Amino acid sequence: MSVLTLGTVAFDTIETPFGNSGKVVGGAASYIALAVAHFVKKQHLVSVIGEDFPQEFLAELSGRGACLNGLTRVEGGESFHWAGKYHDDMVGRDTLATDLNVLIGWEPQVCKSGNNADFVMLGNLDPAVQLTVLDQVAAPKLVVLDTMNFWMDVALDNLKKIISRVDVLTVNDEEARQLTGEHFLPKAAAAIHAMGPQTVVIKKGEHGALMFQGGEVFFAPAYPLDKVVDPTGAGDTFAGGFVGYLASRNQEAGTLTWEDMKQAVVVGSVMASFTCEAFGTSGLEALTKEDTQKRWEAYRKLTACEAIRW
Amino acid sequence: MSVLTLGTVAFDTIETPFGNSGKVVGGAASYIALAVAHFVKKQHLVSVIGEDFPQEFLAELSGRGACLNGLTRVEGGESFHWAGKYHDDMVGRDTLATDLNVLIGWEPQVCKSGNNADFVMLGNLDPAVQLTVLDQVAAPKLVVLDTMNFWMDVALDNLKKIISRVDVLTVNDEEARQLTGEHFLPKAAAAIHAMGPQTVVIKKGEHGALMFQGGEVFFAPAYPLDKVVDPTGAGDTFAGGFVGYLASRNQEAGTLTWEDMKQAVVVGSVMASFTCEAFGTSGLEALTKEDTQKRWEAYRKLTACEAIRW
Repeated sequence: MSVLTLGTVAFDTIETPFGNSGKVVGGAASYIALAVAHFVKKQHLVSVIGEDFPQEFLAELSGRGACLNGLTRVEGGESFHWAGKYHDDMVGRDTLATDLNVLIGWEPQVCKSGNNADFVMLGNLDPAVQLTVLDQVAAPKLVVLDTMNFWMDVALDNLKKIISRVDVLTVNDEEARQLTGEHFLPKAAAAIHAMGPQTVVIKKGEHGALMFQGGEVFFAPAYPLDKVVDPTGAGDTFAGGFVGYLASRNQEAGTLTWEDMKQAVVVGSVMASFTCEAFGTSGLEALTKEDTQKRWEAYRKLTACEAIRW
Repeated sequence: MSVLTLGTVAFDTIETPFGNSGKVVGGAASYIALAVAHFVKKQHLVSVIGEDFPQEFLAELSGRGACLNGLTRVEGGESFHWAGKYHDDMVGRDTLATDLNVLIGWEPQVCKSGNNADFVMLGNLDPAVQLTVLDQVAAPKLVVLDTMNFWMDVALDNLKKIISRVDVLTVNDEEARQLTGEHFLPKAAAAIHAMGPQTVVIKKGEHGALMFQGGEVFFAPAYPLDKVVDPTGAGDTFAGGFVGYLASRNQEAGTLTWEDMKQAVVVGSVMASFTCEAFGTSGLEALTKEDTQKRWEAYRKLTACEAIRW
């Protein structure tokens, strides 16, 4: 099974109460692709970079099985750059700079083999760009969409169009509320189901993630970390782990079950915990299969409980 | 096994974006006692009321096995009354009135049989009052303390004294941070362990509860409700379900295990969900064993997930 990953490959400059990152590699697709690569050998990356982007990171992605034919490199251009400062709670954050640079006017081109991708992960970007890319994929088995409140404010029509065409929507709790006008999350999920997606994943950051599908609900806590260095990219890592795991399952099973979906949410949660422990993608780059297995052994004990004797 | 329950038995007036309660029966001990009574037949209530408090509710508690010898009734006095207004998020709230009334000058008296209680649940009150009551219990097997940020602001010395004498402390996440100066909850729990309690339960409202003990961590999500009518008393109900279940387990087992503690947190979470579905204590009063079992059957599916194939 192959995965097509759309999103930014970019630079971040991050300030937290505990330290500063300097300018590091970031962007939704960087996190997604690294997480996907833990499970799938064949991945098509669709993104755009400037001349300033480091060859080393691209070689890293390529070495992990990512095809870069859909990665546009703009001669003389500068890569997308985001700078932000986290509040003391390590959740709220202020954007200090959003330099769109090469994102302006970019027309994504999916390469020929990418056209036949089985799984499509549409990372957070302008819904118009997400639509253009999805149009270029012939017959995806599963499409996952991530988005954010900004697009609800400025591009709601296109956002609703792309939402109507995907199988899974991932948003955070406040975004689910904004999108639907429903405060309580089961009702918000029901309203999102009515927009198209049969599966709704509501991310709650340090509190975990809720998944709704066909009347079922699943909850995966966030792994309780002794220290969060930088939560940037945790949601993207979650999405990459989620879709990567599903793609790897489908090789064996043929059709995805509710049990597969639940396991994918757990995988996403475990993977995301590593991203939070370092600035940028370094936590994710250093990650081994043994690391993830070991953390999951601790993670699964978090909610394990025998039957209540009422 | 017998339980001693300390806390307010009082009136609340609650306003939410969805409705108003009018003046209803509330108070920490009302919720705790009703939850405890689901598991334990012998319970000693230590509280104070005015002449205005309805006999019907006392008869209800009495009928459920609560001994009221430790309930002081002040002739001509008015019961404690709290009025509050919840924000749109149904989490934040403003206090509109705190009429201490009969709480002023109250000297709690534990009756003779209460002196020999096995389990002690110290509901949220002035730490000086909690100390006075604990001094009157001869040899409790397990003492659980609930408190809030207000006492950290105005009575930190006495609060630290009572904390050093209890087995279990329950606080919410912001209170755990305020008490310890540690932002990340595993570190906050470690700091609280160092103050005395070997078990720390950190309540996160709609997000669930974390329990720390002896290097182990357990997480229980909050049951995702379609609608929250009034979260007042949810934390007290949680505490009552928690201690009531432990008291009922100890009848069989003799010593409490980590598994017992985990089940108690699940019971507390399930019980609390019913309190959120109605104003005041009515949700909890109407509750049957079948209701709790049925919700728990749905609740346990929330986090059930097979092994990951890494």
